[in-house]
Amino acid sequence: MLFITSNEGKFKEAREVAKLFSVEIEWLKIEYEEPQGNTLEEIATKSAEMLSRVIKRPFFIEDSGLFIESLNGFPGPYSSYVFKTIGNKGIIKLLEGVQNRKAYFKAVIAFFDGKDIKIFDGIVYGEIAKEIRGDKGFGFDPIFLYADRTFAEMGEEKNLVSHRRKALEKFFSYLKLISKS
Amino acid sequence: MLFITSNEGKFKEAREVAKLFSVEIEWLKIEYEEPQGNTLEEIATKSAEMLSRVIKRPFFIEDSGLFIESLNGFPGPYSSYVFKTIGNKGIIKLLEGVQNRKAYFKAVIAFFDGKDIKIFDGIVYGEIAKEIRGDKGFGFDPIFLYADRTFAEMGEEKNLVSHRRKALEKFFSYLKLISKS
Repeated sequence: MLFITSNEGKFKEAREVAKLFSVEIEWLKIEYEEPQGNTLEEIATKSAEMLSRVIKRPFFIEDSGLFIESLNGFPGPYSSYVFKTIGNKGIIKLLEGVQNRKAYFKAVIAFFDGKDIKIFDGIVYGEIAKEIRGDKGFGFDPIFLYADRTFAEMGEEKNLVSHRRKALEKFFSYLKLISKS
Repeated sequence: MLFITSNEGKFKEAREVAKLFSVEIEWLKIEYEEPQGNTLEEIATKSAEMLSRVIKRPFFIEDSGLFIESLNGFPGPYSSYVFKTIGNKGIIKLLEGVQNRKAYFKAVIAFFDGKDIKIFDGIVYGEIAKEIRGDKGFGFDPIFLYADRTFAEMGEEKNLVSHRRKALEKFFSYLKLISKS
């Protein structure tokens, strides 16, 4: 089973989770073309379809985003671009004086089984902090409050509750199930 | 010559400019897939390549965005998504207390001549206003200051100085030139 990602951190996290399910994964480190789309599911499905024209064996890819309720889901599928431009500071500023700070991280895995594409998702609910806190993790982790700590303050603990972890568990438990039947 | 766009306003504007160059354009009203990309040029080129696999005659497409200097070019190639989520209010808020309000609108035309793809661009420089002003135009027009008025206060006059106008003029004058040779 191939995991296609250019992100080493993502691959290592997936490998740890895969072990718990006795699944072995290999890393195909390439950057691939991402189409635009209205949802993570749509983008991941289209990306997997495109890759499946070239890679003729089972693989999976993963994409994730931060969705802020009072900003109509922004930055959503464009989280990576928004992080690179306005960053955590920009998000904090957009929410200045805003009461509703509800947000969620969502991860989507698209799995190509050699024939069809299946989607597995994981969500973690939280709130946007009033300031940047913590120096672990990456991306929007320092502003995402899970209970009373940000993801960037949680370190390794984050990996036990994260959206990505949930999507990976869903996916690997599915794999284990079908390998038995 | 086909103009592929789902936006009637864009088509009408292009037709007016085309007349000045004695060029006739037809409207192919479809929404097409936009890939993600780091620049408008990259996105427009990829979109045109994709369309050219299906549409076997000359056509052009247009894409545009707002680039704000102090926000590292945000919202840039994702202007349409950012407008739909955080809107003009979000941009005003991101720039609260920010001295450098420089911004530009850029339009990019990708022209498929039946064989190759050529790019024509147009830029208009301005500043981000401190509040939303004017009710003409669309998108970020009400916060884009050109001299002392916003694009949304200028109405028809905007079409004489806009980024899109500049790109269209570049493109149609090129077409006229090659039709003579």
